[in-house]
Amino acid sequence: MGMFEQNKEGIKQDILTLSTMVDKAAPGYTRRPFTKWYAESREWLKKEMENCGLDVHIDAASNLVGRREGTNPDLSPIMIGSHTDSVVGGGRFDGVIGVVAGIEIVRQLNEQNIQLAHPLLVVDFTAEEASEFGISTIGSRGMVGDLTEEDLGRKDADGCTLREALEFAGGRPEKIEREALKAGDLSLYLELHIEQGPVLEQNEKVLGVVTGIVGIQRYEVIVEGQANHAGTTPMNMRYDALTAAAALVLKLEEISNLSYAEQVVGTVGRLSVKPNGPNIVPGRVVFEFEIRSLDKDVFVQMMERFEKEMERIQQQRGVSITTNQLSHSDPVVVEEEVLTGIEKSCQPLGATMFLPSGAGHDGMQIAEVAPVGMIFVPSQDGKSHCPEEWTDYGQVAKGIQALGNTLLHFDQELSSKRRTGRRKEPSGLS
Amino acid sequence: MGMFEQNKEGIKQDILTLSTMVDKAAPGYTRRPFTKWYAESREWLKKEMENCGLDVHIDAASNLVGRREGTNPDLSPIMIGSHTDSVVGGGRFDGVIGVVAGIEIVRQLNEQNIQLAHPLLVVDFTAEEASEFGISTIGSRGMVGDLTEEDLGRKDADGCTLREALEFAGGRPEKIEREALKAGDLSLYLELHIEQGPVLEQNEKVLGVVTGIVGIQRYEVIVEGQANHAGTTPMNMRYDALTAAAALVLKLEEISNLSYAEQVVGTVGRLSVKPNGPNIVPGRVVFEFEIRSLDKDVFVQMMERFEKEMERIQQQRGVSITTNQLSHSDPVVVEEEVLTGIEKSCQPLGATMFLPSGAGHDGMQIAEVAPVGMIFVPSQDGKSHCPEEWTDYGQVAKGIQALGNTLLHFDQELSSKRRTGRRKEPSGLS
Repeated sequence: MGMFEQNKEGIKQDILTLSTMVDKAAPGYTRRPFTKWYAESREWLKKEMENCGLDVHIDAASNLVGRREGTNPDLSPIMIGSHTDSVVGGGRFDGVIGVVAGIEIVRQLNEQNIQLAHPLLVVDFTAEEASEFGISTIGSRGMVGDLTEEDLGRKDADGCTLREALEFAGGRPEKIEREALKAGDLSLYLELHIEQGPVLEQNEKVLGVVTGIVGIQRYEVIVEGQANHAGTTPMNMRYDALTAAAALVLKLEEISNLSYAEQVVGTVGRLSVKPNGPNIVPGRVVFEFEIRSLDKDVFVQMMERFEKEMERIQQQRGVSITTNQLSHSDPVVVEEEVLTGIEKSCQPLGATMFLPSGAGHDGMQIAEVAPVGMIFVPSQDGKSHCPEEWTDYGQVAKGIQALGNTLLHFDQELSSKRRTGRRKEPSGLS
Repeated sequence: MGMFEQNKEGIKQDILTLSTMVDKAAPGYTRRPFTKWYAESREWLKKEMENCGLDVHIDAASNLVGRREGTNPDLSPIMIGSHTDSVVGGGRFDGVIGVVAGIEIVRQLNEQNIQLAHPLLVVDFTAEEASEFGISTIGSRGMVGDLTEEDLGRKDADGCTLREALEFAGGRPEKIEREALKAGDLSLYLELHIEQGPVLEQNEKVLGVVTGIVGIQRYEVIVEGQANHAGTTPMNMRYDALTAAAALVLKLEEISNLSYAEQVVGTVGRLSVKPNGPNIVPGRVVFEFEIRSLDKDVFVQMMERFEKEMERIQQQRGVSITTNQLSHSDPVVVEEEVLTGIEKSCQPLGATMFLPSGAGHDGMQIAEVAPVGMIFVPSQDGKSHCPEEWTDYGQVAKGIQALGNTLLHFDQELSSKRRTGRRKEPSGLS
């Protein structure tokens, strides 16, 4: 059995090529899903997949999937991949390196004439980042049948439904449920990703074994006050939606800073004011907030506290406050066996540590049907989702090498279990 | 000497006609300056002015001015008027009734064959409301030569300068300074306006004699933090521009609620977040705030307090906060003699009270060169700058009658002073 190489120049080329397929009118490296730039990069990826012999198709949820057959027809595939959509003003590495890793690993398998026992799937998931439809990890949700009719009916600012967007990207939304993967359909899902935080760098590690992915709860808060003339409305006769919203924003920060069983983060990232005139008391403010933790119970505790504050501010300020849950995902904890296998593959390549992922990933969805494992490479200055996002190409190459070795490890491990009957059914992990 | 009539039906027709010349794609009744809807209404006003015999021209600052000659060539004109631009989503009465009043008064002077001793100017001031250029009362500023080169170079969101906008509206910015009115060029300025607040209605009065106009200080505040991933950046490693801005918004409210020598209002009406993504810690927030009072010293006291809070929040949160003053206008106190003359003209027509104006008006600028006086009519529910803005047509007609009688009063009063040598030089009132 071979070992994977570090092909720094090859993967640098792939990353640079994808970084040109972006909306040049938008800041940074912007490749939003369902745009022409996304279609362009998909077309390029499809060709690259075909060039290394993969059998490529677009699944019902519009994910781009390339398949390489294995030698043992009884085994379910191992899948590796990530996503190529970005946030507005994002960087060149987030998601991209995981898809490039999949293709590079297939190239090296071919070069070394390695036949895996398992079929191998390389996937580019559709729309992993928070989308205009209010939800994220759209493609991986669809792959496991977790896109509801309500989700598919969600509209973006232009009134386009998610259903229409998926069709535009080559999906067949009406077949999502029928084609959804079930427990046992995959042997394992592996993903390489940038850390997007400062932990590896600050600990002088080059590889991270991800212990779990935080759950995310995302809400919209609507504060309705009364728009009025800013000069003629005395302070004590106002129902100012913005000062009420400001009080809520600070309370959310305060609640997120409290001590819980697991660390949490709480963020108001988006806020808009109406009518937004310099001499008008704001009548309406809408903001979105999200909370993240590895512990589901923490969400309940935080929201209880937040709802008490909403009630108090509503009473005190005579405004009306309503909340809508936009999305939620449960935390995922990586299985002990998977952690051990990944660590074993990383250790020989450089300083390795265990850490949780504060960011959501497609693996959260795939964990519904299969064990998942993730490897992190360092993010310079902890930055991501911005043009300065950076990971040295050598570190990316090392991450791909680690992922390839992990793939070889589990291809063998899971085949032998199968032979000796010790293979566990993939757990739900939800 | 005649008395003015209440021509409810005539002025209703004028107000309704102007209310159709608005941007129908925008909310409420929106007629922003320097738009085609504004040009349309100007064209209509010009014809109406000409129809009642006024000699119409557009001055250097693009104000629409109609002149009716007087019998005494030694007297400076009395000017009446207001503005016809609106805020976005505004109403049908704010400004409009003061311009309609000017035309209606000329019609009645003509019908009753009244020759005034003073020349009479009817004016529609350009861009009274807060504009895209960050300043308000643009036309009246220009009329008294108070538009600086810096002001004229201000740009709107499309990069159009104020200079270009004034030219588009028929002005000649290069002549503003040369043609500016000086002390003595006007005998008096009178304006009818809706109250835009709840005071007249709550006191069951139909006419208000305005004692003064609050000064307004308007600032832009820029909070620079650091945009980062909302999941991977621990709470204690954030430089969140939005939570810092929220703390500032609440402090401004707190400072405005303190007790001062004169009542104040402080408002954050406009706020924007960057990058404004649901999963990104905000890196930059820009907001505008304004404070209003009849006492200049109060501004100094408030800003001292606000600057201390900015300093504290900057230190505490590791963000950078800068402020730019966007505009400022000094409070104006109406002369005792003017108050007495207006009250005498209002009293016979209905319940009258004295009250200050919390809103800025063009009279603040004209006060630089002449005595000013204002009459308020009630605003239903105190509402203005919204589509529901309403004053009964009968109340508007009564206001016009009061303004007309005030004009007759001062035409006589100021002429006789002139004759007997008791006429005071117009005071600067700044």
